[in-house]
This record gives sequence, structure tokens and C-alpha cells, in this order.
Amino acid sequence: MASSTTNQEKTGVLGRVWEPLKALPKVLWEKVFDICKVTKEIAQGDPRRVIHSLKVGLAISLVSLFYYYQPLYENFGLSAMWAVMTVVVVFEYTVGATLGKGLNRTMATLVAGALGVGAHYLASLSGETGEPILIGFFVFLQAAIASFIRFLPKVKARYDYGMLIFILTFSLISVSGFRDDEVLEMAHKRLSTIFIGGSACVMISIFVCPVWAGEELHYLIADKLETLGDFLEAFVYEYFETSKEGDSKDNKSCLEGYKSVLNSKSSEESLANFAKWEPRHGKFKFRHPWDQYLKIGALSRQCACRMEALNGILNSENQGSQEILCTIKEVCSEMSLESGKALKELGRLIRTMTRPSSADTHVANSKAAMKSLKSLLQSSLWEETELLSLIPAVTVASLLIDIVDCTEKIVDSVNDLASLTNFNIVDIDKTTKTSSESSLSEYAELGPKTDNSHVVILVEESALALTHCGKSISDQHNIV
Amino acid sequence: MASSTTNQEKTGVLGRVWEPLKALPKVLWEKVFDICKVTKEIAQGDPRRVIHSLKVGLAISLVSLFYYYQPLYENFGLSAMWAVMTVVVVFEYTVGATLGKGLNRTMATLVAGALGVGAHYLASLSGETGEPILIGFFVFLQAAIASFIRFLPKVKARYDYGMLIFILTFSLISVSGFRDDEVLEMAHKRLSTIFIGGSACVMISIFVCPVWAGEELHYLIADKLETLGDFLEAFVYEYFETSKEGDSKDNKSCLEGYKSVLNSKSSEESLANFAKWEPRHGKFKFRHPWDQYLKIGALSRQCACRMEALNGILNSENQGSQEILCTIKEVCSEMSLESGKALKELGRLIRTMTRPSSADTHVANSKAAMKSLKSLLQSSLWEETELLSLIPAVTVASLLIDIVDCTEKIVDSVNDLASLTNFNIVDIDKTTKTSSESSLSEYAELGPKTDNSHVVILVEESALALTHCGKSISDQHNIV
Repeated sequence: MASSTTNQEKTGVLGRVWEPLKALPKVLWEKVFDICKVTKEIAQGDPRRVIHSLKVGLAISLVSLFYYYQPLYENFGLSAMWAVMTVVVVFEYTVGATLGKGLNRTMATLVAGALGVGAHYLASLSGETGEPILIGFFVFLQAAIASFIRFLPKVKARYDYGMLIFILTFSLISVSGFRDDEVLEMAHKRLSTIFIGGSACVMISIFVCPVWAGEELHYLIADKLETLGDFLEAFVYEYFETSKEGDSKDNKSCLEGYKSVLNSKSSEESLANFAKWEPRHGKFKFRHPWDQYLKIGALSRQCACRMEALNGILNSENQGSQEILCTIKEVCSEMSLESGKALKELGRLIRTMTRPSSADTHVANSKAAMKSLKSLLQSSLWEETELLSLIPAVTVASLLIDIVDCTEKIVDSVNDLASLTNFNIVDIDKTTKTSSESSLSEYAELGPKTDNSHVVILVEESALALTHCGKSISDQHNIV
Repeated sequence: MASSTTNQEKTGVLGRVWEPLKALPKVLWEKVFDICKVTKEIAQGDPRRVIHSLKVGLAISLVSLFYYYQPLYENFGLSAMWAVMTVVVVFEYTVGATLGKGLNRTMATLVAGALGVGAHYLASLSGETGEPILIGFFVFLQAAIASFIRFLPKVKARYDYGMLIFILTFSLISVSGFRDDEVLEMAHKRLSTIFIGGSACVMISIFVCPVWAGEELHYLIADKLETLGDFLEAFVYEYFETSKEGDSKDNKSCLEGYKSVLNSKSSEESLANFAKWEPRHGKFKFRHPWDQYLKIGALSRQCACRMEALNGILNSENQGSQEILCTIKEVCSEMSLESGKALKELGRLIRTMTRPSSADTHVANSKAAMKSLKSLLQSSLWEETELLSLIPAVTVASLLIDIVDCTEKIVDSVNDLASLTNFNIVDIDKTTKTSSESSLSEYAELGPKTDNSHVVILVEESALALTHCGKSISDQHNIV
């Protein structure tokens, strides 16, 4: 009995070891398969990422020519290492981020290099004993002060990397100076190799399939507004009407879309910070009002908050009385649909950068519907009604009223953006009609969707006079 | 006449140049004054930032001893530079971030160094012409692949810096190898100096006034819950009652607090990512369930969304009929206050990590109030009422019902956290009373507030038996 128990125990122990081992290849295979799947999804979802990876490889290979090619190597020697290092550290996904890091690195190296040489000179005056003490004191002082400055919000947003490189360069130059008297030459070489590496990055990121942070932000905001518009339309179908077969899955994804808007603040802010570094490109000037996009983003988050509450009502079990729902159905649908159209129209407006839009008309329609909702609620007397059964419908009405207000604010913000950036004015005769199928939607198709191949439409202010029909725009479209 | 015009023009030009020049010192002085004010505010708001700056200075000064001290310098020579560079780049505000960067850098250097030496060896086999071509190919390939891997979400969250250093080290080692045959020694020196710099950072950040990312996240979540609780209490005073004199300003700030909760996702996620690198510290074990905090954070954002809608109603002009407001005032106040108390109690519960809490009781109270609200709305028949005037009150009721549901979910999540991390159980007899001034609030005072001096209460599981009165806790409090 005892031995059989021991045997069982042994098989037990062996089994415990063997089972996972036997499963290992399968588990590994599944892991590899998962990784491949994710990789494929990322590559297909945005092929620009693959291109970016190849660009990084190209930049590093280019800069490493400094080592292979004898005449270049004779000039810089081991300092050529700094060029490679700069490329690896500075090359970012968007042009703005690359340019910002490159400029930060170059400027910080220049300033810190000068100060470092100065500190080295000052310290060398104080004799052999005093020198390391004085250098140590300088290094401590600048590191502490610069580290503190990095906490200032404005510095953190745009010059954080510069401060880091400042600390790095100052420490390296002044400390190395203690051992190496050719400190000036060292500072010079370091600066020139960093400049070479940085310019290689900037050139490649601008001229080889550029990804502009400003353009990303522009289309991101347009996408967000369209997502919110889709929600409002999907909500009407889902809440007030029985959803059509087949559409229901599509509707579901539209109803979830607002969630991506809710948490978009940090990505919008970083894109705006990068965009501020970018030179004129395509439709965007150097001092394009990027902060206006952040305002629109903040308003769209407010709107999305109301949608979260609407979605909560949609998913709750207590749907309240059908009677009141039938009464307000028509005006509420009108409010929601018109606001949705206005938001989608704003999205198109931003995408194409052409005025005027029918958004104002849609907002006016939704405000008219809001008024008739109010007068409907005011006039129809509800006799002997359970208030509890009114709650869902009344809350939906109230949230929709909020959303209409919010939409109006968004329209104002987008109009501000349009006048700040001189959106092109197209064919006013056609666009005065109030239907949602306004002629603008025709041009909207010309504008690039946020996919991998943003086709930039170069529309100069001087070309304003030309742009009086769709044809002239599509002509320009072909030029580029 | 002509000459007087020219004179006027001259004065005009001079004036235009002189005026700004005259104003310059004043403008500069105001700028400096502003910067000093912001600096003072930051330093006073969180003195740990000043300490962090001094720590960075200390670490860099310590590591630069490698240059000053002859025996150390003889060992490493110019490679000592890498130690300084590592300190500057790796030293971050929290222990977790520093540890994460340090480990990433060390591991990436180790792996990339080994592969780089391998690539150098392989390339050197292929003769003088083949070598630079083969090395260039390897460098291009690894840079492209590693850059793409950085896009994978899981890698981006925790190993992004490691991938960057991998590209850097591989390129430097394999490319430098082309000129310098002592590639193995170079890899060895680089690794050891990086290791020294990294350990200096980690040691100083752990042992000199540490700022733990996990602790930050823990108290951040506790703060958020308390902020939401404050909102609900302030809302009751502001909406249902005439606010007391003097309290109104305090109320206003409570009513704005939810906004900080709305946009907290990215900061919570990065803190959780850093926290996962941290070893056991204070009350937190190595594998503390940090993801559970993210769940609580997501729920609190849902709750904050409803508060945004409530705030919108509070600030709107149309306040509706007073009649219905008076009817539902009592139950709605009860719902809001009890939910608020539950949220604040949860905040205290997380802060002190002691069970049981009175949160369940408060939620039960608010759910009871919700039931009586529902029956009140069901029973009281509203004869001949304008629906329009009901909208604000009904919406408030509906949003409060949502908030009660949300609070219940948060209570469940916090209870999950409590059972996952074995919160200490204290004095059950006292805590069974249902009033909001539960005995727990006494202990709550012991727990550290999120200020600069988190006093860590070391409460081991083994000490459970001891914790049967407030005294034993405060004894432990004194030990540390």
C-alpha cells in the first residue's frame, strides 16, 4: 500500500512536471501565433507604421556611413557615435515630434556646451585641489535647478527633452574637461555630430512619407465629431424605433464610439504640442491655431459625457411608459438627428476646410425641434400619470436638450477655427439649400480620410478667386 | 512743412522703437516675477519635487566621482561617461519609473551587446568588402524590426525604453566594431558602467525620501473617491437648499472637483505601469493588484460623467417647478448624501487599508432612499402638471439613481480590492453602528493624507491578532 502511494506520488510529481512541459510547445506556438496576429493587425491597420520602421532603419544606416567611409571618419573619429545615438533617440513617428526633439537637443547641447566650457575654465582657475570641488558643485547645482525646472507645466509640455539634454551635456563637458584638456574641441565635435544626426532625422522624416502631427490632430478632431454624429443617429434608431435587421451590429459599434472621445485629452494635447514645431505643410501654416482644436476637443468630451448617460438609459431595464415615448418620439428624433447631422457636417467641414457648411442650418433645425419639444411638454397636460414611468423619456429629452446646446457651442468653435484659418469659400448658391445632402458633401469626398495616404490639397489663399466650382478644386487636387 | 513731417516721422519711428524698449525692463521683471510665483507654488504644493531635484544633483555628483578619483578612472577611463549618461536619463520622479528604466536599459544593453558582438563576428568572417555591407544590413534590419515592435501596445506600455536602448546599443557596438577591434571590451565596459549608473539611481531613489508610484496611485484613487463624495454633498446643499453664507465658495470648489477625475485615465495607467516594477514597500506587496485600481478609476470616471450632467443642470437657468422639487427633495438629498458618504468612506477605507467599512451600510441607505423615491414618484399622482417644469427635477432624480448604481459597483470593486490584498480587519463591534461617524473615521485620521510625508504604517498580516483596538494601531504607527 505504502509503495503504491509512493508510486502514485512519483507519477504525481512527474505528471506535474511533465504536463506543462508537454504543453509547452503548444503554448509557445499559440503565443507566437498571437503575436503574429497582433503584428498583422497593426501593420494592416496603419501601414505608415511599417514605413516608419523602415525609415528608422534607413536613417541609422545612413548615419553609420560616418564609420565606414574613411574621409568622414578622419574628421570625426569616435565622435561619430554621437550621430548614431542622436538618430536613435530623436527619430519619432511624427515630423513635429522629431523636429521638436531635434531642436531641443541641438539648442540644449549648444547652450549647455558653452556653459560647460565656461564652468571648466572657471574651475581650472582655482588650482588642482579646488578644481574637482568646484566642478562637482557646478554639476550638482545645474542638475538640481534644471531638474526642478522640468516640473514647470509649460516647460514639461515642450522643452522637457531639452532640459534633460542640458543636464547631460553640461555634466559630460564639465566633468570630462577634468581629464581631457581638449574640452573645446570635444564640445565642438559633439555639437556638429549631433547636428548632423538631427538633420538626417528631420530630412528623412519630412521628405520620406511624412506623418505630420498637425494633420493627425486635424483629422482626429474631424473623426471625433463624426463619431459623435454617428452616435446620435444610431441612438434614434435604437431607442425610438425598432432597429432594422442587419443594421443592429453596425448600430452597436456606433453606440460605443463615444467612449474613444471621452479619454482623448492627453493624445490631443501631445499632438498639438508636436504640431507647434512643424513648418508650413499642405493646408496648414506655421502658426495654425492648434489650440482651437483643443477647445473643440474639450467641448466634444462634454458632449460625449451626455452620450454616456444616454447609453446608460438605453441599456437599463426600466424603459418607462410607451405613451410619453410616442408623444415625444418625433421631436426628439428630429433633435437628435439634426444635431447628429450638424456634428457630421462639422467633421466634413474640418476635413475639407471649405466654407460655408450646412451645420448652422442643422443646428437651427435642432433648436427649432427643441422649442417644439418644450411647447409640446408645456401644452400637453399629463393627467394622472405616474411620474416614475416618465423618468426615462424625460431624462432622454433633457440630455438631448443639453446635447443640442453643446452642439451649438461646437459649431461656434468650428466657425472660429474656420475664420482663424481662412477656410476656402465654395459655391454659395448651391449651399444655401437646407437639406442634409448639401453640395458640400460632394467636395467632402475629395478630402482625405484618415487613412495612410493623406493626399494634401494645396489651396493657397491667392487661389480663393479660382475656387468657384468643384472642378477647380479637383483640378488643384490633381496638381499635387 | 515737409521737414516737420519728416521730423514727426522720425519721432514716430523712434517712438515705436523706444516705447517697447522703455517697457522692456518692466515686462522682463513681470515675467521673472511670474516665473518665481509659479516656482514657489510648485515647491510649496509638493516639496517632494524640490527633494527630487536635489536627489538628481546628488546622484550625478556621486557618479562623476569616477572621473575625479584616480583608481576608479584607471579602470573605466572614458567609459565612465556612460555612467553619468545613465544617471541623467534613468533617474525619474518615482521609484517604479526609475527601476523600470534602469532594468530596461541594463537588460537591453546586455542582450543587444551580445547580439552586436555576434553580428560583428559574423560580418568579420565575410572579408574586407563584405563587412561594412553585412553590418549595414544587420543594423538596418534590427532597427526596422525593433522600431515596429515598439508599436505593440504591451511593449509600448512597459518596454518602450528597452527597445530604444536595444537599437542604440546594437548599432553602436556593431558599427564601432568596424573601427575598433576591442569590441568585447567595449561592450563589457559599457555594460558595467551602465550597471553602476543604474544602480546608483535605483539606490538613491529607493533610500533617499522615496516616491513610490504604487503609493501615489493608491492615494490618488482614494482622493478621487473622496472628491466625488464631496461633490455629492456639495450638490445637495447647492441644489436643494439655500447655501449657507461663507460655505458657498468652498462648495464651488467641491462642485468643480469631478473635472479632475474625468481626465485621469492616462496618469492612472502610467502610475500602474510604474508600480508594477516596484518591490514590496510599506503596505504594498510586489504583486499588489494594481489593475484593480484601474477598474475603480474607470468606474469613478463613469460616475464623474453623471456629475458633469448634474452640474450642467445646476448651472442652467430653467430650474423647473418648485413643487416637485419640494416633494422629492428629502429622498433625493438622502440618496445623494448617502452615496457621497459611501464614496468618502471608500476613500478612507483605501487610505487606511482597514476593514470593515460603513460603505455598504451607506449604499444600502441610498438604495433604500432610491426605492422610496421610486414609490413616491409612483404613488403621487401629478394632476395637470406641465411636463416641461418637471424636466430638471426628474433628470436630477434619474442621474442620482444612475450614481447610486455606479456607487454600488465602486463599492464592489473596492471590496474586491480589499479581499485581494487582505485589508486589515479592525474592531468589528464598534463598526456595526450605522451612523456616518463610524469608529473607522477615528482610524482614518491615522492614515497618511497625500501630502509630502506619507508615513507608512507597516501592518503585517501576522499582526492581525494585535489590531483589536485603536491603541495597537497607533503603537505600530510610532514604530515606523
